[in-house]
Amino acid sequence: MPNPTAAMLVIGDEILSGRTRDANMHHLAQALTRHGIDLCEARVVRDREEAIVDAVRALSGAFDHVFTSGGIGPTHDDITADCVARAFDRAIDVRDDARAILEAHYDRQQTELNEARLRMARIPEGATLIDNPVSAAPGFTLENVHVMAGVPAIFEAMVASVLPTLTGGAPMLSQSLQIFRGEGDVAGPLRKLAEAYPDLSFGSYPFQRQGAYGSNVVVRGQDPGRLDEAMAELHRLFPG
Amino acid sequence: MPNPTAAMLVIGDEILSGRTRDANMHHLAQALTRHGIDLCEARVVRDREEAIVDAVRALSGAFDHVFTSGGIGPTHDDITADCVARAFDRAIDVRDDARAILEAHYDRQQTELNEARLRMARIPEGATLIDNPVSAAPGFTLENVHVMAGVPAIFEAMVASVLPTLTGGAPMLSQSLQIFRGEGDVAGPLRKLAEAYPDLSFGSYPFQRQGAYGSNVVVRGQDPGRLDEAMAELHRLFPG
Repeated sequence: MPNPTAAMLVIGDEILSGRTRDANMHHLAQALTRHGIDLCEARVVRDREEAIVDAVRALSGAFDHVFTSGGIGPTHDDITADCVARAFDRAIDVRDDARAILEAHYDRQQTELNEARLRMARIPEGATLIDNPVSAAPGFTLENVHVMAGVPAIFEAMVASVLPTLTGGAPMLSQSLQIFRGEGDVAGPLRKLAEAYPDLSFGSYPFQRQGAYGSNVVVRGQDPGRLDEAMAELHRLFPG
Repeated sequence: MPNPTAAMLVIGDEILSGRTRDANMHHLAQALTRHGIDLCEARVVRDREEAIVDAVRALSGAFDHVFTSGGIGPTHDDITADCVARAFDRAIDVRDDARAILEAHYDRQQTELNEARLRMARIPEGATLIDNPVSAAPGFTLENVHVMAGVPAIFEAMVASVLPTLTGGAPMLSQSLQIFRGEGDVAGPLRKLAEAYPDLSFGSYPFQRQGAYGSNVVVRGQDPGRLDEAMAELHRLFPG
């Protein structure tokens, strides 16, 4: 049975303007690979209602899971929750269970739960909360969309909360060989090897180091025995 | 007049599997912002024909420019050029001008221009070549799609070749203020400020440092005078 599929949606004016560099995509990609869920696409869109709604609809229709990052804080530019609600035509309002989590958190901190902070308790009808052990304000899952914060420490904690609840497949395994020859020399034998192992995927990624060209060949698959076989062949083709 | 718009398309099994971290998106975002082109969306898709063709069609229809990264080398998994040709229903074959560039390069290196390397001279009908001062094999522009290599040093050199040929708008300027208060305290006054300056965009990005919460407020716009005004207001609202 093929693995479940997933897409990531980053709500990210900050990334598209070049002011900050996304860190969550790399973390999610590694976590999903370990869990046996295939990350098939990632999108970064602007903090605009139409862009977010359209992307949520397109990705949730095309993949088993969608993971979003960013735009669920207390400020006026945090519109992700409302957009996800709209994408599924659900009502959204402050929900008692989310409000109780925030009340307890801000009581402990002796901080006022003001109108802005209360925005973080806006949860679409029918959603399940995602635990946030870092700063309390919860994420949520609506249909197949998991809505999480953009701050890396919180995003990672939320991924750790959600992933164990999702059925994974066989983890995708990979092995690689660094070959100190240009891709143009590697390409011919590698193509034949890839044809002989149609159940594995073969990628070649060139590098240049101290003026010399090389290729990292990466072999991926779910059967460790087949992976070992292909790697042995690769070592025979490119010894040393 | 609004700035030209752009999208980026990363052909990236390597990134989606979590094995490597994309570096080109951040570089392109910064280069486009300086040039006055608004990067509105970025997508990472798998090295699969359908995924690439669909994304090229969708993005080239929605934005003024599309910049692609990856998949134009000599190996079997380099399918970007063929996919871009298919997206625009163009023929693709080895083209004389591209072959001449490769011949000169590999002659200098005393390296054989074998069948695999010659694949890098496959250029869609009607495309314009993009200069590659690093490793010769050219990128190309077809319609509004600029096809570039994935290796960061080559990607960056190709961006530097292409950008001066594109009309930019007014560069998007930004200023930021680090406020050592939680977003929940910043949110109310910030919303009012954003309403008073509808020509600027206001983003708030929380951080946590040594146990204390803070917010980076970023103001963006094209008019330096308005930006200065808004920043002065922001300093008045959050002194110290």
